[in-house]
Amino acid sequence: MRFKSIPYLLIFTSICLLSFIQDGKKKIVFFGDSITELGVKKGGYIDLLNNRIANNGQSNQYEFLGAGIGGNKIYDLYLRLERDVLEKTPDVVVIWVGVNDVWHKSMMGTGTDYDKFGLFYDALVQKIQAKGAKVILVTPAVIGERYDQSNPQDGELNLYANWIRQYAAQKNIALVDCRKLFIEYSTKNNPNQLDKGILTYDRVHLNDAGNQLVANAIWEAIK
Amino acid sequence: MRFKSIPYLLIFTSICLLSFIQDGKKKIVFFGDSITELGVKKGGYIDLLNNRIANNGQSNQYEFLGAGIGGNKIYDLYLRLERDVLEKTPDVVVIWVGVNDVWHKSMMGTGTDYDKFGLFYDALVQKIQAKGAKVILVTPAVIGERYDQSNPQDGELNLYANWIRQYAAQKNIALVDCRKLFIEYSTKNNPNQLDKGILTYDRVHLNDAGNQLVANAIWEAIK
Amino acid sequence: MRFKSIPYLLIFTSICLLSFIQDGKKKIVFFGDSITELGVKKGGYIDLLNNRIANNGQSNQYEFLGAGIGGNKIYDLYLRLERDVLEKTPDVVVIWVGVNDVWHKSMMGTGTDYDKFGLFYDALVQKIQAKGAKVILVTPAVIGERYDQSNPQDGELNLYANWIRQYAAQKNIALVDCRKLFIEYSTKNNPNQLDKGILTYDRVHLNDAGNQLVANAIWEAIK
Amino acid sequence: MRFKSIPYLLIFTSICLLSFIQDGKKKIVFFGDSITELGVKKGGYIDLLNNRIANNGQSNQYEFLGAGIGGNKIYDLYLRLERDVLEKTPDVVVIWVGVNDVWHKSMMGTGTDYDKFGLFYDALVQKIQAKGAKVILVTPAVIGERYDQSNPQDGELNLYANWIRQYAAQKNIALVDCRKLFIEYSTKNNPNQLDKGILTYDRVHLNDAGNQLVANAIWEAIK
Repeated sequence: MRFKSIPYLLIFTSICLLSFIQDGKKKIVFFGDSITELGVKKGGYIDLLNNRIANNGQSNQYEFLGAGIGGNKIYDLYLRLERDVLEKTPDVVVIWVGVNDVWHKSMMGTGTDYDKFGLFYDALVQKIQAKGAKVILVTPAVIGERYDQSNPQDGELNLYANWIRQYAAQKNIALVDCRKLFIEYSTKNNPNQLDKGILTYDRVHLNDAGNQLVANAIWEAIK
Repeated sequence: MRFKSIPYLLIFTSICLLSFIQDGKKKIVFFGDSITELGVKKGGYIDLLNNRIANNGQSNQYEFLGAGIGGNKIYDLYLRLERDVLEKTPDVVVIWVGVNDVWHKSMMGTGTDYDKFGLFYDALVQKIQAKGAKVILVTPAVIGERYDQSNPQDGELNLYANWIRQYAAQKNIALVDCRKLFIEYSTKNNPNQLDKGILTYDRVHLNDAGNQLVANAIWEAIK
Repeated sequence: MRFKSIPYLLIFTSICLLSFIQDGKKKIVFFGDSITELGVKKGGYIDLLNNRIANNGQSNQYEFLGAGIGGNKIYDLYLRLERDVLEKTPDVVVIWVGVNDVWHKSMMGTGTDYDKFGLFYDALVQKIQAKGAKVILVTPAVIGERYDQSNPQDGELNLYANWIRQYAAQKNIALVDCRKLFIEYSTKNNPNQLDKGILTYDRVHLNDAGNQLVANAIWEAIK
Repeated sequence: MRFKSIPYLLIFTSICLLSFIQDGKKKIVFFGDSITELGVKKGGYIDLLNNRIANNGQSNQYEFLGAGIGGNKIYDLYLRLERDVLEKTPDVVVIWVGVNDVWHKSMMGTGTDYDKFGLFYDALVQKIQAKGAKVILVTPAVIGERYDQSNPQDGELNLYANWIRQYAAQKNIALVDCRKLFIEYSTKNNPNQLDKGILTYDRVHLNDAGNQLVANAIWEAIK
């Protein structure tokens, strides 16, 4: 009679192992604006991350979910946090936002006040952490690629990026400082001070080099 | 032994009656911006409502709570909904917002996109209704009191007020159409097309006549 | 010997007559923004005016010159007044400007202050009149065609149009009140409150009906 | 009879000499915005320049005229060039403008387009030079004194200052690079990245140290 139970034991063990592997797959949600919405397309930074884990044979260890919507600002993320992020029960949430909060000021008169940006940002992070997920913060990269600080929104991007840097340091949260990385890259690779075509194709959205740089930087933070 | 319990019975009955009276007191939260923040001050529209119920001998029937913060836009209300409104377990929430959503566009580049205004407004109403509270909506009144539609923000105020009117009608929610009331009043009482001093002291915030008009209009909706 | 001079006399007389006809041709410059720049294209309002005088056999009485440049505001007209208008020695200058002065406020943060609009407008008119040319003023028509005053820029368009109306009345200058005409037309012909497609194809620039209405209205002022 | 005319001869000679001295007095007009309007007040940078020439015994060599008006942008200078500058027949015109062209974008939606800034600037300089006067250009200094490029308007100020620098170089015009001087000063003297109180009292307008620095820099250019 005892030996009869061996098949059941095997099945049970398999299920346990499977669920263990399942548990072992880290679910990472990329939460952001159009840059992240485009990130899941072929050649986008999230697609590149998927290629990387496939090449590494790590596809059973990570699951990447894009949750980017064009035009989103910090409070738009807050509004759709529950539905688009928390319901996916992520292990890690990468928050990359800020370009529209700054850009829409001059473009449509609907940017985000500096103090409100911080209030919503903090509320967002706290709600994610309360669910037990890890947070990784990313600074807004560029609106224009001249590295001499003469792109019209440079002052505000620096201001909002500084806020994120200080917040990350103070709360001991992982930070991918895309703004710093982009300016360093442009300083080396943009001798003619072009305002696009270096890491973006239109001053804001990533070209191949941009997607590669971002994928590499984020991989260092999540691997 | 039985008679000994009579005092307890009386106390118990009293508590029941008190709690019944307590229950009978309708708790109304006024949720909004600086206009509502000022509404609780002496002579403000909420203060006038308090005077009215005191004079009517109805102070045991209503409780008015101000929850206005200067500079607030629709998404600011959404951010502090839980703490400043829902935790007070209101019976009725009067939502009066919109002036800053429009005004801050030209003033600071941080107004609210038309479509986002609707998204947050609806989310706010749904969260309040889900708690069983009744909602009363109020249209933003004026930024400038000329009645000939030549105040710079008139177009946008009409647009946002129209959204609230249609939403209220569609969802069968009570509406106090302050914008309509203010323009009607100015048409009758502002022969020189002054842009302040009729119902406001500074184009936006209520003077005595403004507070009186608003208190009357809201009273009709809540009594 | 006397008869030999007859041919010369004929030539001299012909020249005199030609120059007389030349003098009799009223030169009208249309000074404005993209709406006027498009006005000279086939089907544009200036083209329609040319067709009209051709059909009337009046082509020897009028000469129409377009001087519209896309994106122009009142101070742009002032900057190029000498080169693009006064050097053409016009008999009449039709000034149609204002849409960008209002629109660029929210679109790019570079609209024109209300008081500056008046200062440049008056300086422009005075310089033209000082050259002996007649001026005809045109109010900015629409940015969005809803007639219920809920197009976002309606308040400002009314404000700037009011300034032009009062200025024209005060200075006794001919006025073509396009804003009034457009709103009246929309009130009759736009039952669904569409924001384009009535007299414009994109909320601002004239479609066939728009060009026809403008050509008719301006013809009444210049004929 | 001849000797009687000697007094007249002396008077005549004196007048000639006086007018010669008069001619030798270099007339310098400071053309700008509120910063220059305040420059003529006690302790302002133009007042400091007057003190300097008085102390140097050079008051008979220079005449300083303030022509600054609060809120002025480049096209406002163009509008009042004739009356406020050219009619004074200056030897030198110091043009210091740009802060409002940038600042009013976010503050009131009425800043100056980058391309229009250049067009008006060039037209202004050409008109002054055509009258035989020398021009000295000054870059807009600061809107906020943090030296880490995180003041909201830093990007635009750099952009507009770069335009002036390149224009001055290309046209071989003297330049006082106030923006560069202010940032260098703040880098050395503003360890806490304060946004005012270093060379300004309110992020824009000069305090004593600011007036001193500007007076010194301009003196080097005009002496």
